[in-house]
Order: sequence, then structure tokens, then C-alpha cells
Amino acid sequence: MDTVDAATPPTRLLLGPGPSPVHPDVLEAQARSVVGHLDPWFLGVADEIASMLRQIFRTENQLTYAVSGTGSAGMETAVVNVVEPGDTVIVGVNGVFGGRIADTARRAGADVVALEEPWGRIVPPERVESAMKAHPEAKLVALVHAETSTGVNQPLEEVGQLLKDTDTLFLVDTVTGLAGVPLEVDAWHLDVVYSGTQKCLSVPPGLAPITFSPKAEAVIDRRSSTVRSWYLDVSAVRNYWGGDRAYHHTAPTTALVGLHEGLRKVVAEGLETRWARHAEVGQLFQEHIQDRDATLLAQEGYRLPQLTSVGWPDHVDEGKMRRRLLEEYGIEVGGGLGTFAGTAWRVGLMGEGATHSHVDRLLEAVDELLEG
Amino acid sequence: MDTVDAATPPTRLLLGPGPSPVHPDVLEAQARSVVGHLDPWFLGVADEIASMLRQIFRTENQLTYAVSGTGSAGMETAVVNVVEPGDTVIVGVNGVFGGRIADTARRAGADVVALEEPWGRIVPPERVESAMKAHPEAKLVALVHAETSTGVNQPLEEVGQLLKDTDTLFLVDTVTGLAGVPLEVDAWHLDVVYSGTQKCLSVPPGLAPITFSPKAEAVIDRRSSTVRSWYLDVSAVRNYWGGDRAYHHTAPTTALVGLHEGLRKVVAEGLETRWARHAEVGQLFQEHIQDRDATLLAQEGYRLPQLTSVGWPDHVDEGKMRRRLLEEYGIEVGGGLGTFAGTAWRVGLMGEGATHSHVDRLLEAVDELLEG
Repeated sequence: MDTVDAATPPTRLLLGPGPSPVHPDVLEAQARSVVGHLDPWFLGVADEIASMLRQIFRTENQLTYAVSGTGSAGMETAVVNVVEPGDTVIVGVNGVFGGRIADTARRAGADVVALEEPWGRIVPPERVESAMKAHPEAKLVALVHAETSTGVNQPLEEVGQLLKDTDTLFLVDTVTGLAGVPLEVDAWHLDVVYSGTQKCLSVPPGLAPITFSPKAEAVIDRRSSTVRSWYLDVSAVRNYWGGDRAYHHTAPTTALVGLHEGLRKVVAEGLETRWARHAEVGQLFQEHIQDRDATLLAQEGYRLPQLTSVGWPDHVDEGKMRRRLLEEYGIEVGGGLGTFAGTAWRVGLMGEGATHSHVDRLLEAVDELLEG
Repeated sequence: MDTVDAATPPTRLLLGPGPSPVHPDVLEAQARSVVGHLDPWFLGVADEIASMLRQIFRTENQLTYAVSGTGSAGMETAVVNVVEPGDTVIVGVNGVFGGRIADTARRAGADVVALEEPWGRIVPPERVESAMKAHPEAKLVALVHAETSTGVNQPLEEVGQLLKDTDTLFLVDTVTGLAGVPLEVDAWHLDVVYSGTQKCLSVPPGLAPITFSPKAEAVIDRRSSTVRSWYLDVSAVRNYWGGDRAYHHTAPTTALVGLHEGLRKVVAEGLETRWARHAEVGQLFQEHIQDRDATLLAQEGYRLPQLTSVGWPDHVDEGKMRRRLLEEYGIEVGGGLGTFAGTAWRVGLMGEGATHSHVDRLLEAVDELLEG
């Protein structure tokens, strides 16, 4: 058989849209001895993960856990468990990730009402209000809290107020938002909320924190059709994370021990402190990058500090500069997606990445590349 | 916020149905520095993973990769990509995992013809032949190669011969089989085959190796309906693992670097050598456990060496003995599922677990527990 050499990764400073830099303690935690997914010791770890996730989501939702897949698996879990064929679903689409929610809802049999907005703009709460008036039967309104393709920070509170006393659920994608900008699941009346580990939590990719409100659980309990996914069916998975610990699938125990360590770091820093750190570092970067002939593509007043979409003028070859940044400086940033492909960067200052010294390193490298 | 202590796992000898013991080199590989999923270095690692998986699956299938989820996500990927609503699907059901394939196929809209057999028995190839005569329109025949709930080693070659010149696909679950017992994807004419990392590959749980034959790819390309899962849609995922490296979801890079190291160990040992080691160690255990008043629940002649279902007589409290084995000896074995719950153990001697000394440790502990 053909042998290959061991994989020895180059050292990278990860300032793209994810994965973000991971603290050595988290990597070390993943390398501890493996235990079984039904081991009583491990079930205690799972309980602590759920408890810390509740603190970070700012919720008392019982049904809070980590999906055994990446953030996109969290998205699919959120959608397929509450949507049934024929349901009306209102989705804000102002970037890649709103589009994915719409796509997934259609695959689950929903009639999707897409509220399209230009990339880089928020979905105005008034648009959701009008859509709700036109479609009072809507099962669900879905918005992306932190659009990773544009860097927009979507306001959520007004829509939460609008929906809280209705039968309509509020589904929120906070893959890039959680632990980076304020999010209040209970206070804002959010019902189904998912994230990913490889953004502001600074844990390797592969798990998707998720939480369901009692209102969402009631909708799941009243389903008349079977969930289209076996793997992501919450009715089965919650028996593992909940009381009777029934086997559903083999939980990824080493990755979860890594997540446990990463959540401990978030809790130790304090959520407000972490939000403030992201705000300060992101603002610093956004101020200074504009001095480099670049523009910020997200709407003013609604910019995520942890994910900035940077538009380059025509005379800058963003792809070439991005490759040189990786190869010569060991710094990863992301390219633009969709509308922004070929003209923009996505710069992530997330979790362990959100420091003044990283901003300095990036700006110095950019200056050298722009000169050279 | 409430803080919790770091998770320091107890040392366990994992001789249950998975996860199996993991070599320290694999754990160390997972703890190397994190890289991005679109980093050119990482894409090279992904290519090497696919290449090693082809060697271990014994296939030249181009579409061979690791699903970003556990073995059950591999199962769902296999089923939902080839099944469309209204398709007839023939599924052998002689344990938990055949039942899951049937369930998942139904969720994908299939009409399932379940070939039920008693737990611990194979699905006779003649039954498949009769079912194919009754349902020549069948899109798919699905069998479980290595039934983790019973320890049965399902013969596959005759069914492969039967289907190879038809339009019907052959789907095989080898979650517990791969790298533990002979499997020949190409020579046996298997079309959609999936596994898990936490069994005979001895890699932590969280990824599902999968391979699709050109015949299966052609079926996927001819679909008239959209795949019901966005996350597991092969038509999108293959653009990441294949030529143009399009972003679909953030690949779990650290887990994949761990898989790379685990596959290197399989290739270095040699597949036939690894099969022979599992055969020898499993047979040793199966011979000796029968001297302890226990019976083997899988049909003679079709017993997996790497996963043994052990039936205990009425006077043995298997649950109590299993708990004591974990707590006092640090050895994990699994309890029975379904029909076998409360009366049986499932003993895995898989990957790094398949050694003479582990069999000795387990038998000594069993003897002490049976005496005490």
C-alpha cells in the first residue's frame, strides 16, 4: 500500500471567516484519552457543556446541546425539526447564509417567502412586520444574526417582540455571532438558535451549539409528519442529551471535551468582557483599514466587529494579495463570496484572534503588500 | 458566570462497540495547530485522506471522502443521495442498523421492503434474490456488512454478483467492518459504502468515510428531485473534495488531520495483516468466553471477530457486572441493544483494541467478577 508522510501543519494566523485561532489548552483537551459516549464520566461532561452553552446563549432552555456536525448541520437541525411540508417560512436573505436557510426549508417542503435585501444591508424589521401581515400563517421567521458573507449585524429585538405572543417561531443563525456580539436568546424571544464552534468560541470546527425554546419544543412535539432527517432528529437526540441517555449515535467525545475546554475559557473571561474585546479590536481594524484605500461593505451602524467585509478598489488584485499574505506572512483571511467574490476580503477577528497585536500584524503585512 | 473544572478523563480500556482505543499519535495529530479548510496545505491532506480511504475500501471510486459527522451521518448521506420519493428500497433488517437504514429510507420517501431476519442471523442471499424477483424495479438493496448490534458478518459477494448488471444499486453499511474484516468494494460490486472512524480504524468518533461507485454517481446525476438534506448533499460536497474546491461547509480540519494519522497507521500495518490480527484476537476471545458459561449470539460461521455479542445466563446480572467492570477495572464493554438488552454484552476488539493482552485483561476481570 502507498504510504504518505505525517501531516505537519504550517503555522497560520487564522484571521479569515473561520476556523479562528484555537487556544493550546483546547487542542490539548482534544488529545486527552478517549472515553465512551455512554461513560458516566462523559455524561457529566455533556451536562456541563449544556450548562455552559445556556450561559453563553443567555437562556434557560432545557433543550440546549451541541449537534454532531459543523455549523451547517446546526442550521439543518434547526430548520428540519420545526418545518413540515406545506409550512410557510419567512426568511431574510441578505447574504449566503440566509439563502441556505431558504434552500434547506424548501428541501423540507416549506413554501419560502424570501425577504431579499442587497448584500451588506440588514433586513429591516419593518419588512418582517409587513411579511407577517401578508402571511399570518407563517410557521417561522428566520434571520441571520451575523452574516458571515457580508459582516452585517442584524438587529433581532424588534422581530422578537413582534413574534413573541404569536404562534410563529423565531429562528436565528448566530454561527459567527455567539460570544462575539451581544445575543440574548431569552430576553429577545428567540426560539431556535444555532451556532458553530470555529468562530468566536475559538474551538475547532465540527460541532454546532443549538438551543430550542419551550415554544419550539411544543411545535416539535405537535408535528404530524416525521422529521426528514434521521441523524438530526431532535426528538431522538434529546433523549441522549436529556434524562434517559438513550443511545442515538456515537457522540464525538474527544471533540466535545475540546468544546468543554473552550467554553470554560469563554466563561472565565466573562461574556460581556468578551463582547467588549471583540467590539474594541474590530473597531480598531475597521478604522485603520479604511486608510488603506479599502471600503467597508457592511452598512454603517450594523457592522460586526468580529467579521469585516473589506472592499478593494479595482486596481488591487485581492486574490494575489491574499495568496501572498498566506504564503509569505502565514496569515489567512477569506475571499469574498457571491456578489463580493473577487473584489473583497473577509477578515475575522474572532475569539483568540481578536487582539490588538493581530490587527497590527495584519495591517503591517497589508501595507507591505500594497507597496510591493 | 458559573465555572466548572477542566475535564480530565479517567483512563479506560475501550472494549465496547465503539469508540475503540486510539493511538497516542492520532490524538497528538488532532492537537496540532489548526489550519483553514481552504488552505492549500490542508487540501493536500484531504487528497491524501481520500487516497488512503480508496486503498482501505479497495476501490478506485473517485467519489470517496469523509462525511463531517459520525457513522450515522454516513448512513444518512448514503441513503438520501440515491433515494427519491416513490423509490422501492429493499433493506435487510436483522438488527438495529438495518432498521435505521429502513427508517432513513422511509424519511426520504421510499417504499421500503424490509427483509426481516432474527437477530443474530444473516440475511440469506436467496432472500435478496427472491425480493429482487418480486421487486425488479428496486432502486437499491441495502445490507449491513457488520451488524454492531449482533456481531453478524453478512456475506456480500453473491448479492453483488446478482446486482452488478442491473440498474439496482447495492448499499452497504460497514461502520464496524472497515479495516477489521475483508471488504472489497470494487471486486464485490458495492455501490454506496459507508463506515465510521471510531471502530476498526481506531480514530475518535465524528467522521464517516464513504465511497460512491460511478454507477451510484450516475444515479445521483440523474435525480429528478432535490436531495432532502442540504448538509449531506453529495452534489455540493463533492465540489469541495473534488476539483474546484468550492466552499460548502467548514470541514472539521483538526479531526481530519487525526483521521489522516489513523489511516497512515492502517496503511503501514497492511490491510491483510490487520484483518488477520482481528480474526485471530477475536477468535481467541470467542473460544474462551464460552468457557465462562456464556453463549455467542451470532450465527456460527458468520461471526465478526471484532464485535462479539455475548449472551449471559439468567443468573448473571450483566448490567451490574458491566458497571463493576468499568468502575473497578476501567474496562468498557457495551450492553445489548433491542432484543438483546439486559441479557447480553457487546465486546469490541477493534483496531488498537485487538490485542492478546487486552483479551487476557478482560477475561481475568470477568473471572473475578463472576466469582465475586
